[in-house]
Amino acid sequence: MLNRKGLLLVVSGPSGAGKGTICKALLNKNDQIKLSVSATTRKPRNGEVHGVNYFFIEKEEFTKMIENGEFLEHAQIYDNFYGTPKAAIIECLEKGQDVILEIEMQGARQIKEVYPEGVFIFVLPPSLEELKSRIVGRGTETQEEIEKRFSCAFEEINQIVNYDYFIVNEDIEKSVNDVEAIISAEKNKVTRYKNNIIDKFKEEL
Amino acid sequence: MLNRKGLLLVVSGPSGAGKGTICKALLNKNDQIKLSVSATTRKPRNGEVHGVNYFFIEKEEFTKMIENGEFLEHAQIYDNFYGTPKAAIIECLEKGQDVILEIEMQGARQIKEVYPEGVFIFVLPPSLEELKSRIVGRGTETQEEIEKRFSCAFEEINQIVNYDYFIVNEDIEKSVNDVEAIISAEKNKVTRYKNNIIDKFKEEL
Repeated sequence: MLNRKGLLLVVSGPSGAGKGTICKALLNKNDQIKLSVSATTRKPRNGEVHGVNYFFIEKEEFTKMIENGEFLEHAQIYDNFYGTPKAAIIECLEKGQDVILEIEMQGARQIKEVYPEGVFIFVLPPSLEELKSRIVGRGTETQEEIEKRFSCAFEEINQIVNYDYFIVNEDIEKSVNDVEAIISAEKNKVTRYKNNIIDKFKEEL
Repeated sequence: MLNRKGLLLVVSGPSGAGKGTICKALLNKNDQIKLSVSATTRKPRNGEVHGVNYFFIEKEEFTKMIENGEFLEHAQIYDNFYGTPKAAIIECLEKGQDVILEIEMQGARQIKEVYPEGVFIFVLPPSLEELKSRIVGRGTETQEEIEKRFSCAFEEINQIVNYDYFIVNEDIEKSVNDVEAIISAEKNKVTRYKNNIIDKFKEEL
């Protein structure tokens, strides 16, 4: 059969667009995909679990990991640090395992620089109004944080040009199907294997 | 909603790889896609219907259509001419209708030159041995034609580098699903709409 590396799926979008919900639903449906767990210095939200949603670590430890080059990317968002531990991801990809990463846009840009063959997906809300009501409805942010996030949202949407695909997240089931179709299509891309394919048929001659 | 042109799906592959079967099964399953019917000067095979499988026309008429610029592409394969009537396809694409085209590789190259935003799909047999047994099993070609087609097959497979996607046609249902995933993913590509998306959210501000 054709050998290939795993796909690195990088999912971003404005806060409230639903990227976390999509990733969670995709992972529930499809056990072939591995979630990359990021490290962060921000406080856990209600129900978030260390090692599942994030590795919640202190600033001092985070800084040491940066110095040791242990992140694929790292970024400061508002007052918090976020980073993607490198070793585990590279190991999975080399074994042919697909990995999904939910990440802010600064981080996605850094990953694209070092790993351009990643599949970059931008999750959009159906509208800005809907986005605001989702952030408010989540009830985890202060009024000030809500305003800050919302005012960033439009500027963030401009960054869609750095992504390969977009998903308008109106219906979670449809969004998950869209991501699965992207994964399937990417696995059928000629550029991911072209020499492999020709070599396979040469062997028969 | 986001406006976009229809997708032009261009499907090629060596004779016997099953591109015709895939297209037919896809069209049966999905009535949102329109089949582009090509014109040809070759004789109909058993069961082929004029206006459905091909427009079967005489060489003289074909030559006149070339002179009038009525083809998106045209090519000579062995002793026969094949061509894709232009007007009907462009009209569909402008209306947002997806169109699928089954076409030899010379024709696909010409289409790519004039319509690079097409989606170019290459259908592969599981193996060259399987390919040969399919061509023989079809029973529509003479022994000489079979040898001619088979000896071309490997050379044709080298042309996969001109295509965006490939499908290894082992199981027809799986192949049709793969094509549908490609269609879905292409509709979620940022490059097909980027200004539309940003403008849509600007309107809300």
